[in-house]
Amino acid sequence: MTKISKNIKVIAFDADDTLWVNETYFRDAEHQFAKLLAKYETENKIDQELFKKEIKNLKLYGYGVKGFVLSMVECALELSNYQVKQKTIAAILEIGKEMIEKPIELLDGVEEVLQSLQGKYKLIVATKGDLLDQERKLEKSNLLKYFHHIEVMSDKKKKDYKKLIHHLDVSPSEFLMIGNSLKSDVLPLIELGASAIHVPFHTTWMHEEVSDEEKLEVDYKTVANIKGIIDLL
Amino acid sequence: MTKISKNIKVIAFDADDTLWVNETYFRDAEHQFAKLLAKYETENKIDQELFKKEIKNLKLYGYGVKGFVLSMVECALELSNYQVKQKTIAAILEIGKEMIEKPIELLDGVEEVLQSLQGKYKLIVATKGDLLDQERKLEKSNLLKYFHHIEVMSDKKKKDYKKLIHHLDVSPSEFLMIGNSLKSDVLPLIELGASAIHVPFHTTWMHEEVSDEEKLEVDYKTVANIKGIIDLL
Repeated sequence: MTKISKNIKVIAFDADDTLWVNETYFRDAEHQFAKLLAKYETENKIDQELFKKEIKNLKLYGYGVKGFVLSMVECALELSNYQVKQKTIAAILEIGKEMIEKPIELLDGVEEVLQSLQGKYKLIVATKGDLLDQERKLEKSNLLKYFHHIEVMSDKKKKDYKKLIHHLDVSPSEFLMIGNSLKSDVLPLIELGASAIHVPFHTTWMHEEVSDEEKLEVDYKTVANIKGIIDLL
Repeated sequence: MTKISKNIKVIAFDADDTLWVNETYFRDAEHQFAKLLAKYETENKIDQELFKKEIKNLKLYGYGVKGFVLSMVECALELSNYQVKQKTIAAILEIGKEMIEKPIELLDGVEEVLQSLQGKYKLIVATKGDLLDQERKLEKSNLLKYFHHIEVMSDKKKKDYKKLIHHLDVSPSEFLMIGNSLKSDVLPLIELGASAIHVPFHTTWMHEEVSDEEKLEVDYKTVANIKGIIDLL
């Protein structure tokens, strides 16, 4: 049984797939992309090639929709041996714009949890992705009023959280992270001596997956619905 | 004569074209882009269309290289009436990757100024653009050691600075901004009752330009070289 530190001052929430639906939209976009290129390859092969391209470009582009779209364009050119129609490239750009403009679909229990924690802790959002995109989503979500501010992080490794916790002027034992990604929202925090609660989402990007060995090594708390965190605090 | 408040606690530096060269690289990229499309239009027309496209997409993509590249691709498709070669699209993606990987060229006097202010004020970077891109540039610049942290802002309007100053827990009179853009680094600060010093760079993006009327309405301090700010403090 993991203990949640008793002197938590700051609770940070991951955003995508913790507060609202996100990964589902990437899966939809990948499916549309595969349909656009169906004459060149199978959906399975297209998925694999796009994933490879994204990982290769991650160091340059970082997380978020814009980098994803640039990787789709590059993948379409290469996969088609530079035969892909110009209108198809335009359609790929359009997929990206639609993703950016998607309405926000809050996950069950989110607003209830924020209402209950508000005033008792400093609540922040700690998320990867495009800064503008994340700020826009937070605004559209109507959740802005619950949060002290939003931290958009270029990555969510141990060193990034160390910097964040330092910047917030708290100690690791006063910091609790809530999120759907074991790799990005839980494991680095436990390593730092901070607290973390895992709230799984049904869809996880392959890049965020964690091996069973890694999971066994650390002791963390999982709740099936975000509402479960209220009882843990 | 503008006064710089005597109780400055935080000094924020804009990054691109204040600490290091940036706009020059965008001008170079635009020139390469125009050369790639030379068979369809004059350079002048291409410049104009790309600028229009960037402004149209700004609300969706925000500032930074990735949005710029997506706008170039879209502009190339439309300007060529969807005739642009697939290899040309690949070349446009390459322009973007090269921009992201450019070495950092510090502007004259920057390191001297930071050394002299270090320890006397809390120094931060306050910049627009891609988060990952700006963090990477700061790391490559070797200036990281002078700064408490970096604030990547999705925009630099009055409301964004208000949020930033609030988040830093200081009052406007304790905040000084240094930057090359009158529109983004100076005017909104003066409006808020904070201090600002203008350090012009030889190249300014059209979108950052300010009319003579706007300039006349406010009273701000300009220094030709960033070293000039030491005497003002």
